[in-house]
Amino acid sequence: MTRLYNDPNQFADEMIDGFVAANRRHVRRVRGGVVRSTASAPGTVALVTGGGSGHYPAFGGLVGQGLAHGAALGNLFASPSSQQVQSVARAADNGGGILLSYGNYAGDVLHFGNAQKVLREQGYRVETVTVTDDISSAPLAEKHKRRGIAGDLTVFKSAAAAAEEGATLDEVVRIAAKANERTRSVGVAFSGCSLPGADEPLFTVPEGRMAVGMGIHGEPGIDETDVPTADGLAELFVGSLLAELPEGIERPEGQRVAVLLNGLGSVKYEELFVVYRRVEQLLDEAGITIVEPEVGELVTSFDMAGASLTLFWLDEELERLWAAPVDAPAYTKGSVVPAAPLSAAVLAEAETETIPPADEASRAVAPLVHRALAAARATIDATVDELGRIDAVAGDGDHGIGMQRGVTAGEAAAAAAADAGAGAKTVLDRAADAWSDRAGGTSGALWGAALTAVGSALGDEGAPDAAAVAEGVRRASAAIGEFGAVPGDKTLVDALVPFSETLSDRVAAGAALVDAWAEAAERSTAAAADTATLLPRMGRARPHAEKSLGTPDAGAHSFALIVTAIAAVLAER
Amino acid sequence: MTRLYNDPNQFADEMIDGFVAANRRHVRRVRGGVVRSTASAPGTVALVTGGGSGHYPAFGGLVGQGLAHGAALGNLFASPSSQQVQSVARAADNGGGILLSYGNYAGDVLHFGNAQKVLREQGYRVETVTVTDDISSAPLAEKHKRRGIAGDLTVFKSAAAAAEEGATLDEVVRIAAKANERTRSVGVAFSGCSLPGADEPLFTVPEGRMAVGMGIHGEPGIDETDVPTADGLAELFVGSLLAELPEGIERPEGQRVAVLLNGLGSVKYEELFVVYRRVEQLLDEAGITIVEPEVGELVTSFDMAGASLTLFWLDEELERLWAAPVDAPAYTKGSVVPAAPLSAAVLAEAETETIPPADEASRAVAPLVHRALAAARATIDATVDELGRIDAVAGDGDHGIGMQRGVTAGEAAAAAAADAGAGAKTVLDRAADAWSDRAGGTSGALWGAALTAVGSALGDEGAPDAAAVAEGVRRASAAIGEFGAVPGDKTLVDALVPFSETLSDRVAAGAALVDAWAEAAERSTAAAADTATLLPRMGRARPHAEKSLGTPDAGAHSFALIVTAIAAVLAER
Repeated sequence: MTRLYNDPNQFADEMIDGFVAANRRHVRRVRGGVVRSTASAPGTVALVTGGGSGHYPAFGGLVGQGLAHGAALGNLFASPSSQQVQSVARAADNGGGILLSYGNYAGDVLHFGNAQKVLREQGYRVETVTVTDDISSAPLAEKHKRRGIAGDLTVFKSAAAAAEEGATLDEVVRIAAKANERTRSVGVAFSGCSLPGADEPLFTVPEGRMAVGMGIHGEPGIDETDVPTADGLAELFVGSLLAELPEGIERPEGQRVAVLLNGLGSVKYEELFVVYRRVEQLLDEAGITIVEPEVGELVTSFDMAGASLTLFWLDEELERLWAAPVDAPAYTKGSVVPAAPLSAAVLAEAETETIPPADEASRAVAPLVHRALAAARATIDATVDELGRIDAVAGDGDHGIGMQRGVTAGEAAAAAAADAGAGAKTVLDRAADAWSDRAGGTSGALWGAALTAVGSALGDEGAPDAAAVAEGVRRASAAIGEFGAVPGDKTLVDALVPFSETLSDRVAAGAALVDAWAEAAERSTAAAADTATLLPRMGRARPHAEKSLGTPDAGAHSFALIVTAIAAVLAER
Repeated sequence: MTRLYNDPNQFADEMIDGFVAANRRHVRRVRGGVVRSTASAPGTVALVTGGGSGHYPAFGGLVGQGLAHGAALGNLFASPSSQQVQSVARAADNGGGILLSYGNYAGDVLHFGNAQKVLREQGYRVETVTVTDDISSAPLAEKHKRRGIAGDLTVFKSAAAAAEEGATLDEVVRIAAKANERTRSVGVAFSGCSLPGADEPLFTVPEGRMAVGMGIHGEPGIDETDVPTADGLAELFVGSLLAELPEGIERPEGQRVAVLLNGLGSVKYEELFVVYRRVEQLLDEAGITIVEPEVGELVTSFDMAGASLTLFWLDEELERLWAAPVDAPAYTKGSVVPAAPLSAAVLAEAETETIPPADEASRAVAPLVHRALAAARATIDATVDELGRIDAVAGDGDHGIGMQRGVTAGEAAAAAAADAGAGAKTVLDRAADAWSDRAGGTSGALWGAALTAVGSALGDEGAPDAAAVAEGVRRASAAIGEFGAVPGDKTLVDALVPFSETLSDRVAAGAALVDAWAEAAERSTAAAADTATLLPRMGRARPHAEKSLGTPDAGAHSFALIVTAIAAVLAER
């Protein structure tokens, strides 16, 4: 269990402060995470990783010469926001393009994916390779659905070493993808961990039992057995991994592999060495040559008791990259030629954000946009407890608090932008960034994407008409649809789609914006209420299927509340 | 708890195998532990460390360029034997003398101290600096009694860096002693650990409570409090250490210190970083400049939950040595100039042990010495369970098994030496080495010292007479007395002293050896039985005070059994 913390809400933030304080030679803090404190060669590719906190040395401990250029560090076991990723990526950029690489988890895919989109819009060259090494997390035929665990290291290391060699972004992407394809891991867990301030462990495994394939956040595994001997675990690990050779490798004999035996927190070094002794024997017997193995804590889950074995099937290129020197806070290899620390000028260079130009007509609309957000905030403030209660039925009960954090930050950012002379689009962009950055979680990402999409239709030139607003809402609906939910899933989409359709239809039929919006808001409210009676769709992801009949979806409900509040603002106008 | 093991008795051995397998670039296995697998400059001082297993990265993980040359690795939480230390020291020797440095624990002091004596007799230049950084383990006035914890690293690192620079043994000793004087640590524990195969934790701390100053094997601390916040712990740590500045440092302002924040196993990195954040603030406020801090797991106790803070008060010399590069399996710093791997010739060079010359008369006695040991083995084999039961009353119940392992190995070594033409002294020396090496624990060290002492009086020349045997036993009694027990402590000494006195008296009065020995054995048996009725001496170390009346001391009892068995051998002669 986690014992040492102050305010649990400040844990991740204070942890990053302390991590940077202890490792100033390697890293410096930027908004959203850390980047190297040493200079990188101009024009080289920057590797940006990241994920939730609680997995040290992943991800901050892997930033340094020969490894990552930056890491976006989210809250405990929670993805960093799109804004965090963007901020870290901009600070890490060396002018040679950016590779985003991270473990394949839904939240990370959402936020890193959004960051990639925004960064590309801003002119950065950005590519993504997600890590999918955990063979227990999906069958081979659905390899793209697999989670990333300790294989993060082999993928990051290969990509980073190539970047240090001066490879182009395309080359680095090719190498990272090849390294991922040739990296396979299998893990087990004996007990869960407790997050700071939590009374109960996040998950449990029965005493004396072992969950085979359980994920590092307690995701379900594929089997449960008695705890085996150290040799027995080695045999399970090696047997599982030799049963699934990467494409192009016919048999183990004659192959060269890097081996990672990883402890998740409280399976300690001595135990890992006893297991490794047998792993080496088994790989020897299979005719495999082990290249520069690592036994230790590479990806943890606080003090979770568990371990994983990773095989990284080398070819000549990957072996060269695996052997390259590294000097990061928690991972070192060989002897690097020390890079210069960053100059004072670079360190002092603040991230300056200027307000894009806007014409007078668009700037005149900005205060109205701000008032709409203020109304949204007021309605969320008034219903935050109710939203929490509703969300607790099917979720973790944090929807109200998350929405409140997001809309409060969004309104403040909108006010600041409007005051600074921004047009409608920029006001919404700033609000979107602040909302998703502060809210965290899925609702933050969805609202951020929605506001950005609306802004893209309004622009910073001219007074937007009703058709532009309807088009903006349509784009928001489409953007949110890209996250994968469809009507009937009991999500915000159930309230958004009828809202957008009604608004577009009524505006196309010649209605004034105020009337069309009011009618759309009514339809949305009815649809949100319907989420309490819709039958769950079978065969879809578990959280939706398990929602209780009789309780509306919190996200749909809060959406309806917000568009209703905005209808009142439009009516006052 | 420790979950992954095979045969618990093989754990330490298999752990070392796996550790070496995972770190061949840094270390190679030798009898008793590990030494560097890279070449060291001829004529430089070799730093040999070691201690019980279960504290990784101490001690094997700290062997490598810029750190230790070798580490003697004992069983779980148990000192390595004198033979292990000797073997590692000989393999690590570069011809420039040997510094033994290790944490100040009774068992380690016993075995490393004996090894130093033997190595010096063999012509090696050997010095010792024990580490005594734990300020909670004894008051300042008794600093020499303090235990060593994470401060091992600063002392080892300073000494090793000086050795790499080519400093003489005297210089290295001076530096190690200065580093130890300037290193102070304080630790806390939240829960204990369970050794492999154990059903119960080695020690416990009540839930929600924190033992202040508890040692890494559960040694009693100085206070118990509720678990504080992370900031509260930082304040406790820094406050305690600033209240005891090393000699010659008047006040903290303006000082430069290396800072180690160490996790003992399941207090994880993120928590340590949150604590470190506040440690840095507090040291800043005290006007201290932090130099190259380390936050992580430097000395562990399996998965014990605990942490310690170490301040290493630098001067110019120590700061240079602290900053020097290191490349060891579990500790790296900067960029070393890679040393050559050892040549195949060195790696193939077996430790060759030749039999010292002996005259015919002494060689003729060797079979009798062997028969005496065979009789000792037979009596221990017959009483092993009884010895275990007796020992379980006041000790941990392993006396029978330990004696059996020791005497079995001792007899085999004596047989081999006698077959190879050794004289009486050499037969006893070999038996002593094998006994203390295999038996482990205190009884192994005592019997090893006793047999060596007897051998020293018998010599390898001439047939020893009764006076020589009595003198040998007198020397054994004196050698064992050096370990600190006195008659009445209810130890082997209670049976040995009257045995030796009676033997000497009767031989001096002209008795034949067989008669003198028989009478001495009788006195010894009576004295051993008396340990069941002697009142415990007040004010001495707890184990003796707590022995139950009615149960003899196992060590005294087994001593009497052995001398009685040998009396029968002499009578048969």
